[in-house]
Amino acid sequence: MLKQLKPVDWLLVFVPVALALRYVPALRNETALFVCSGLAIIPLAGLMGRATEHLSERMGQGIGGLLNATFGNAAELIIALMALQKGLIGVVKASLTGSIIGNILLVLGASVLAGGVKFRHQHFNRTAVQSSTTSLMLAAIGLLIPSIFHSTAAAHPGGWTPAMEQKLSLAIAVVLFVTYIFTLMFSLLTHKQLFLGGGHADAHPPSSEPAWSPKKAVAVLLIATAAVALLSEFLVGTVEAARIKLGVTETFIGIIVVAIVGNAAEHSTAVWMAMKNKMDLALNIAVGSSLQIALFVAPVLVFVSFLMGRPMDLEFTIPEVVAVIVAVFIVAEISNDGETNWLEGVQLLSVYLILAILFYFLPGTH
Amino acid sequence: MLKQLKPVDWLLVFVPVALALRYVPALRNETALFVCSGLAIIPLAGLMGRATEHLSERMGQGIGGLLNATFGNAAELIIALMALQKGLIGVVKASLTGSIIGNILLVLGASVLAGGVKFRHQHFNRTAVQSSTTSLMLAAIGLLIPSIFHSTAAAHPGGWTPAMEQKLSLAIAVVLFVTYIFTLMFSLLTHKQLFLGGGHADAHPPSSEPAWSPKKAVAVLLIATAAVALLSEFLVGTVEAARIKLGVTETFIGIIVVAIVGNAAEHSTAVWMAMKNKMDLALNIAVGSSLQIALFVAPVLVFVSFLMGRPMDLEFTIPEVVAVIVAVFIVAEISNDGETNWLEGVQLLSVYLILAILFYFLPGTH
Amino acid sequence: MLKQLKPVDWLLVFVPVALALRYVPALRNETALFVCSGLAIIPLAGLMGRATEHLSERMGQGIGGLLNATFGNAAELIIALMALQKGLIGVVKASLTGSIIGNILLVLGASVLAGGVKFRHQHFNRTAVQSSTTSLMLAAIGLLIPSIFHSTAAAHPGGWTPAMEQKLSLAIAVVLFVTYIFTLMFSLLTHKQLFLGGGHADAHPPSSEPAWSPKKAVAVLLIATAAVALLSEFLVGTVEAARIKLGVTETFIGIIVVAIVGNAAEHSTAVWMAMKNKMDLALNIAVGSSLQIALFVAPVLVFVSFLMGRPMDLEFTIPEVVAVIVAVFIVAEISNDGETNWLEGVQLLSVYLILAILFYFLPGTH
Repeated sequence: MLKQLKPVDWLLVFVPVALALRYVPALRNETALFVCSGLAIIPLAGLMGRATEHLSERMGQGIGGLLNATFGNAAELIIALMALQKGLIGVVKASLTGSIIGNILLVLGASVLAGGVKFRHQHFNRTAVQSSTTSLMLAAIGLLIPSIFHSTAAAHPGGWTPAMEQKLSLAIAVVLFVTYIFTLMFSLLTHKQLFLGGGHADAHPPSSEPAWSPKKAVAVLLIATAAVALLSEFLVGTVEAARIKLGVTETFIGIIVVAIVGNAAEHSTAVWMAMKNKMDLALNIAVGSSLQIALFVAPVLVFVSFLMGRPMDLEFTIPEVVAVIVAVFIVAEISNDGETNWLEGVQLLSVYLILAILFYFLPGTH
Repeated sequence: MLKQLKPVDWLLVFVPVALALRYVPALRNETALFVCSGLAIIPLAGLMGRATEHLSERMGQGIGGLLNATFGNAAELIIALMALQKGLIGVVKASLTGSIIGNILLVLGASVLAGGVKFRHQHFNRTAVQSSTTSLMLAAIGLLIPSIFHSTAAAHPGGWTPAMEQKLSLAIAVVLFVTYIFTLMFSLLTHKQLFLGGGHADAHPPSSEPAWSPKKAVAVLLIATAAVALLSEFLVGTVEAARIKLGVTETFIGIIVVAIVGNAAEHSTAVWMAMKNKMDLALNIAVGSSLQIALFVAPVLVFVSFLMGRPMDLEFTIPEVVAVIVAVFIVAEISNDGETNWLEGVQLLSVYLILAILFYFLPGTH
Repeated sequence: MLKQLKPVDWLLVFVPVALALRYVPALRNETALFVCSGLAIIPLAGLMGRATEHLSERMGQGIGGLLNATFGNAAELIIALMALQKGLIGVVKASLTGSIIGNILLVLGASVLAGGVKFRHQHFNRTAVQSSTTSLMLAAIGLLIPSIFHSTAAAHPGGWTPAMEQKLSLAIAVVLFVTYIFTLMFSLLTHKQLFLGGGHADAHPPSSEPAWSPKKAVAVLLIATAAVALLSEFLVGTVEAARIKLGVTETFIGIIVVAIVGNAAEHSTAVWMAMKNKMDLALNIAVGSSLQIALFVAPVLVFVSFLMGRPMDLEFTIPEVVAVIVAVFIVAEISNDGETNWLEGVQLLSVYLILAILFYFLPGTH
C-alpha cells in the first residue's frame, strides 16, 4: 500500500491536523484551519480521482475522462454547496469562475507545456475538442447575459429587481443544463469514437499502479467524499477570517483556492497524460472539467439555491465575466488546429497570470 | 395547382382575414390584425422564395442561393421601410437584429440539427463560409462602433450630438455597403466555384415541383411582393397596440416577429437542403441572409432614412450589439472546421434561446 | 547608386527641408515642420529596413523577417520615447494602438489584397501564424485588463489609485515581456522551420538590388537611425500645434501618423512579398510587427517610464482597447485556414476604415 503513495499523498497528514485545529479548543486558529483544510483536500480530491480511474478503467477513454472530471469536480461542488448554505454567494461565484479558468488556463497550460517540452507537436481530435470549446462559449454567453441584463435594465426606473434577475438566471440555467445533457449524449453515445483518442488508444490502463478491486475503489471514493465534505465545511467556515488575515479579497480566495486546491486532481492527471502524449485525454480532462463546472455545477447550484429558499442568480462581476470569456477564446484559438506545442502552454499560463494579477489588485467586488 | 400547395400555404387564408379586419369597421381589432398580418406574410414570403427559386434554377447554386436570400429578405426590407416611414426606429433596429441572429442561430441551428440527425457529419466548403462569417464579423464591428462612439463621446461636454452620430453612421454604412459589393464580386465572379457545393452539385432542381414558366414566376413574385407590402403596413400600424396588449416590448416583438415571420421562407428551404445533405446551400442561405441584412439592408435603410429627411443612425442598444457579436462568434467557431454535426445545431439553438430569454425580460430599451 | 533609389526615396528631400524649417528662424512653421518631419521619416525607416534586409539576407526568412520587423519598429520606439520624454502619454498610447492595428489591418490588408489580385489563393504555414495571432490575443487581453480594473475598482470608495494602476500595469508588462522572450525562442530556436516559408524558400535574396557589404549596411543603419531620432523630436515637438491647426485629436494623429509614417517600411516590404507569393514572409512582417509593438515596445516603454520617474500605465481608452481586440479577432479569423484571397484583404482594409472613422469623429479622449 505504501509504495502506491504519490508524493502529494503525504499531504494527507493535514487531515488529522485540521481535525485537531477544529475540535481541540486550545489549538483553535482560524487561518491555520483554513490553510490545513485546503491542503488536506488536495490529496483527498486526488484519491477520489484515482478511485474513479480504477472504476472507469474498462469503460474506455471517453467515459473514463468524463468520470475523472466528474469526481474531480465533486470536490468543487461540495465546497460550493457548503458556501451556498452559509450565504457566501460571492465565494461560490468566485469559485465557479476560478474552476472554469483554472482548468482551461492553468491545468491545460501546464499540460500543453509539459507535453510540448517532450514532443514537438501533439495531435488530438479537433472535432471532439471543438464541441467542448463551443459549449464553453455557450456557457460564457450564459454568464455574460445576466450582467448585460442588469446594466441595461437598471437604466430604466423600476426596470431591474432581484426577482427578475433570479427568474432570468433560472431560465438560463435550464438552457445550460439541457445543453449539457445533449453534450453528454454526443460524447458518450452518438459520436463517442471522436473521444477515444483517434483510434490509437491502447488497452493499457493509464494508471501505473495495480488495479483496485471495485469494492476497494467504491470504499475509497465514499470515505474521501465524506472527508472532503467535512473539510470543506472547515474551509468555508474560516474563509472570512483567513481572508482578512491574509489581506486578500473573497474573489481572490475563491479563484486561487479552487483553481489550486479543487483542481489538483485533474491537474496531475492531465499533465501526466500530456507527458505520455495522450493529448486527447489531457484535453478531455481539462476542457471537460471546465465544461462540467459551467454547464452542470453552476446550474445545479442555481436549482439547489432555489430549493433552499435563498435563490442565487447567475450575475457575475464584470472582471469574472471577462476572465471567463477571455479564457474560452484563448482555448478556442489554440485548439482549433488540432495540435499543440509548448508555446501554446506558455500562452495559456500567461493569460492565467494576467488574470491572477487582476484579481489580486481588485478590491472586493461582491 | 392545388397539389403544389405546401402545408404552410394554408396560412394564405389569413390574407383575406387580415383585409377584413382592416377594412370592415365592425371587425376592427388591432391585436387580431397584427397577428393575422404576421401569419399571412409567412406563406407570401415563401411564395416569393419559390418564384425566385424557379427563376434562378438555371443559374447554379451560388446565384440561386443569393437570389433566394434576396427575396427572403425583401419581406424584411419592406417591413422595415414601413416602420421607418412611421418613425418606429426602435422596431426597425430590433428587426435588423432579429433577422441577423434569427438566420444564423434559429434557421442555421434548425438546419444543422435536422441534417445532423440524418447524417453523422456534413461537410461544406469552409473557404466560402469563412468569407461570409468574416464579413459578418465586419458587420458586427460596424454595429458596435456607434455604441462605443456614443458612450465615449458622451463623457466629454459637448462631445456627442445626434448629428455626429448620424454622420458617423452614414460613413460606416458606406463602408459596409462597399464591402458588400466586393463580397458579391467574390461569390458571384472571381471565386464562384467555392459556392457551388464542392463540385458534387447535381443538375436536378432543388424543387420537387414541376418548373414554373418565367412568366408565371415573375407574376407570382410581383403579386406576392405587393401583398407583403400591404400586410406589412397593417403589421407596423398595429405593432404598438399589439405590444401593449401582449405585454411585451418593442424589441421583443421586432426580434421575434422578424426572426419567425420574415425568415420563414429561408427557414424551410435551409432545413430542407440540410436534410438533403446540401450543407453548402443551407449555409449559403442562412449565413448569406444574415450577411445581406447586415451589409445591404441596414446600409440601405440608413441611406433611405437620410433621403426621407429623418436620418436613422446605426447605434443599437447594448443587448442588441451583444446579441449580434455573440451570434457571429458562435457561427464562426462552429463553421471553421468545414463540417457540422447535430450537437452544433443544438448549440446554435441554445444561444438563440438564451438571447430570446434576455429580450423577453428586458424592459423597453428604445 | 542612383538606380537603386526607390520612388519613396525621393521623400528624402524632406530631410533638409525639415532641418531648414527647424533651424532657420525665418522659416519657422510648426505645422509645416510636423508634416515634413513625418514625410522625411518614411524613406529613412525604409532605408533602415533595406539595410537590415541586406544584413539578414543569409540568416533565413525567419530571422530576416524578425530583423525587418525590429528595425521597422525602431522608428516607432524612437518616436514613442521622444513623446514619453515630453509627457505626451496620450500620443504614446495612441501610437502604440495605431501601430498594432496599422500593421495587421492596413499593412496586412494591402498585402493580402495585392497578392490576391495576382494569385487566386495564397498559402502559408498556419501553425506559425497562429502562434503569433494567439500572442496578439494575449497582448489584447493585457491592454484590456487595466481598463477593466479601473472601471471596476473605481466603483469602490478608495478602490482605485493611479499608483495601483501603475503597479498592475508593471506586473502585466512583465508577463507580456516574458511571453515575448518565449515567442522568440519558439520562432528562432525550437520551431524555426515553421517560419521558413514551408520549405520552398529559395536562396535568392528577396531584394532585387545587388547585395550591400555588411559595412555599408551597418553605416546606413546607424545614420538612418540617428536621423529618425532627430526628426522624431521635431515631429513630437510640433504635434500639439499641428493637431490644433488640422482640427483633429491627439488620438487620431497618433493612430494615423504612426500607422502610415512609422510602418511605411513594413508596408512596402510586405506588399512586395505578397505580390511575389511569399505569404509566409508577408504575414511574418505584418503580424510579427504588431506582435513586437504589443509584447516588446509597449512593455519597454512602461519599464523606461518607471526608470524616468514618470510611470506610464497600460490603461488605454475604451475605443483603443476595442480597436485592438477587433483587429486581432479579424486577423485570427482570416488566418486560421492557412490561406488568403483578395476578399480577405478588402475585409481587413474595411475594418481599418471603420476604426479610422471612429477615431476621426471621437473628441479628444486623453
